[in-house]
Amino acid sequence: MRVRHLMVPPLIVSTVIVVTVLAPSSSSAQTKSCYPPEYTESGDLILPKNFHEWVFVGSPLTPNALNGGQAGFPEFHNVYIEPCSYETYKKTNVFPDGTIFFKELQLTLPPAENADGSRTEPSGRGYFPGAWNGANVTVKDTKRYTDTGGWGYYNFNHHEPKAPTAK
Amino acid sequence: MRVRHLMVPPLIVSTVIVVTVLAPSSSSAQTKSCYPPEYTESGDLILPKNFHEWVFVGSPLTPNALNGGQAGFPEFHNVYIEPCSYETYKKTNVFPDGTIFFKELQLTLPPAENADGSRTEPSGRGYFPGAWNGANVTVKDTKRYTDTGGWGYYNFNHHEPKAPTAK
Repeated sequence: MRVRHLMVPPLIVSTVIVVTVLAPSSSSAQTKSCYPPEYTESGDLILPKNFHEWVFVGSPLTPNALNGGQAGFPEFHNVYIEPCSYETYKKTNVFPDGTIFFKELQLTLPPAENADGSRTEPSGRGYFPGAWNGANVTVKDTKRYTDTGGWGYYNFNHHEPKAPTAK
Repeated sequence: MRVRHLMVPPLIVSTVIVVTVLAPSSSSAQTKSCYPPEYTESGDLILPKNFHEWVFVGSPLTPNALNGGQAGFPEFHNVYIEPCSYETYKKTNVFPDGTIFFKELQLTLPPAENADGSRTEPSGRGYFPGAWNGANVTVKDTKRYTDTGGWGYYNFNHHEPKAPTAK
């Protein structure tokens, strides 16, 4: 078993998330796709495709009800990393240029039953995934983003639909 | 864009999670692995491998602090589906025999700063992923699990390390 420590940019998640990667032992295989960043002619980032099938990193939750009714990032932060840059990271311990972290926001399932925004489902009292709610995307490019430490930050709305491009 | 509604077994998540799948448009590709269920000679399920790179489904959260100090499933429920059975599901709208849902439990990041178990990070007040905490696994096999509606349910501990096999 190989253990990897995945350090993600601080604006994506506010804590370090440790990810253990087990060496695969599959009996069959199929094609796995790569999703390098794509830009418009004017340099805006195009909304990455198929991110729901990227590698999941973690899902912090900042409920609106615990943040004065409007969290800065409402509410689940489902963070994914682009799979091919993740493969490179596993081998080198460095995020290659072109690495994308996709943070899809997702509201908690309504209606809340308590002042803290929680509700009760068969598994207990807590917070349950509801409607999608926009996305933030972070891209590594040490040449393009020299002014921001090699990472570019994009807001594709904090509501649906997600913007097709972001500055 | 194709929209899919992913109905997962009720013991895995307590609500229906809707997943939108965008058709891929990649410029490169690499091998993607399949992970069919593996059993011991006595019929126990072997802990599935490499599940952190499977397709993420959703992450309900039942904090211990909101469940009398001990949630039934503590605390984040990070649910993944085995990628090749997911590919089949997208084409057929039916989970094939061999489909695995992997629910990894993950504690919230300590220390809590409030009675509800929440704490404050730069992104706001809420709940943040901490240590892994065992797993529940659900496998579809309409022949093997005839007594439980075609799905088998396994508990690989609600603490670390995860059990290597489960009955």
